Amino acid sequence: MPIRYLGLDGDDTLWHNETRFQLTQAALRDLLRSHVPDADVDTHLAEVEMRNLRLYGYGVKAFTLSMIETAIQVTDRRIPTADLEVILGWGQKMLGEPTELLDGVEAALLDLSRRYELLLITKGDLFDQESKLARSGLAEMFTGVEILSEKDVDAYRSVLRRRHIEPAHFVMVGNSLRSDIAPVLALGARAVHIPYPLTWHHEHVPEDSMPRAGWHQLENIGELGALLDSL
Amino acid sequence: MPIRYLGLDGDDTLWHNETRFQLTQAALRDLLRSHVPDADVDTHLAEVEMRNLRLYGYGVKAFTLSMIETAIQVTDRRIPTADLEVILGWGQKMLGEPTELLDGVEAALLDLSRRYELLLITKGDLFDQESKLARSGLAEMFTGVEILSEKDVDAYRSVLRRRHIEPAHFVMVGNSLRSDIAPVLALGARAVHIPYPLTWHHEHVPEDSMPRAGWHQLENIGELGALLDSL
Repeated sequence: MPIRYLGLDGDDTLWHNETRFQLTQAALRDLLRSHVPDADVDTHLAEVEMRNLRLYGYGVKAFTLSMIETAIQVTDRRIPTADLEVILGWGQKMLGEPTELLDGVEAALLDLSRRYELLLITKGDLFDQESKLARSGLAEMFTGVEILSEKDVDAYRSVLRRRHIEPAHFVMVGNSLRSDIAPVLALGARAVHIPYPLTWHHEHVPEDSMPRAGWHQLENIGELGALLDSL
Repeated sequence: MPIRYLGLDGDDTLWHNETRFQLTQAALRDLLRSHVPDADVDTHLAEVEMRNLRLYGYGVKAFTLSMIETAIQVTDRRIPTADLEVILGWGQKMLGEPTELLDGVEAALLDLSRRYELLLITKGDLFDQESKLARSGLAEMFTGVEILSEKDVDAYRSVLRRRHIEPAHFVMVGNSLRSDIAPVLALGARAVHIPYPLTWHHEHVPEDSMPRAGWHQLENIGELGALLDSL
């Protein structure tokens, strides 16, 4: 079947994201270890984030609130208020940073947008994602933008139905096996996985648990056009 | 022109929202005055919220972060960490609370959904709004849900275009002159204003600055069906 629609993930597919989170998390580790030298900050933060996911969802605001909660708990409330103000500032800095595109994204999208309808299908905080897209300079290449609170089978099914897109005409491209590849395959559409060097623990899926057929893996978005031509 | 589509705002039109914010803000006032008796907490919080709007957007997570920032600044960093933990807990409580419908909403929507296509058009945090809708028990009455980061003329224009809705067939219903009424009138659609007893300062618009024609005001959503019949 001919491909007509290309879904593209945003974070860590078109622009850097996880790097910024991990840099901030490293700063949190250093800050909290200055108060509690043997603290296991990463494990504690991961637990707080997972517990809060049901209330906060994804994104920088959720991350900032979970960092503050972790800082208070790990230091047994001994962290100075000035340090919490620093953490608050990290969140604001992350939200205001320029959108940094991955290598080759602009040229690849320019080419692909001439041949397919491009949809940005991304997850997370509505306000932050819209703001990142606006600052990316890529907004005009997309026919549509879908910012979802969760990227599961139901969410993709509802996007495709609402837009009258047959799964057979749709290919999803993204860095997360869990959010971009597995749910799309379950609907009978195809997918292209372009891994990012870093993966948030929550997004991790062992590759051998994935279906064998229906998806491909690339190293760089620059190779996407040629792959799609061959399908 | 016959009305075919009814847009309904969520917060303070279908379910209580501002009341919860103002109750929490009153608790913040009391908490901070126990440290700084003459603090003008409301003014300071409003300033922090407006400054952060560009980064955070709307919603409970944004409000919680702005409360924490206000608490640190108003007390000149003297607020105990345990009190900041309390503020964090207020935010989580707000996010987990049941969706409390306004009087008459369920019966009114049941009736209206038989005669018009209902669209929920609301502003704020994607995750929180979806969660509130799910808990409201109203989700099945809507043909579509639009959660916008801002409700201005461009945002409404893009919703109507995407859904192939002529402004002449569309009526928007909501409690905010600024977000629900004015932008919709600018597009040539009609609107019904149902004020809520409380209005967030940011949403306030003097009524005499509004266009004279194209909109109506009701006291209760129970009167909406009869008004629409008369249009």
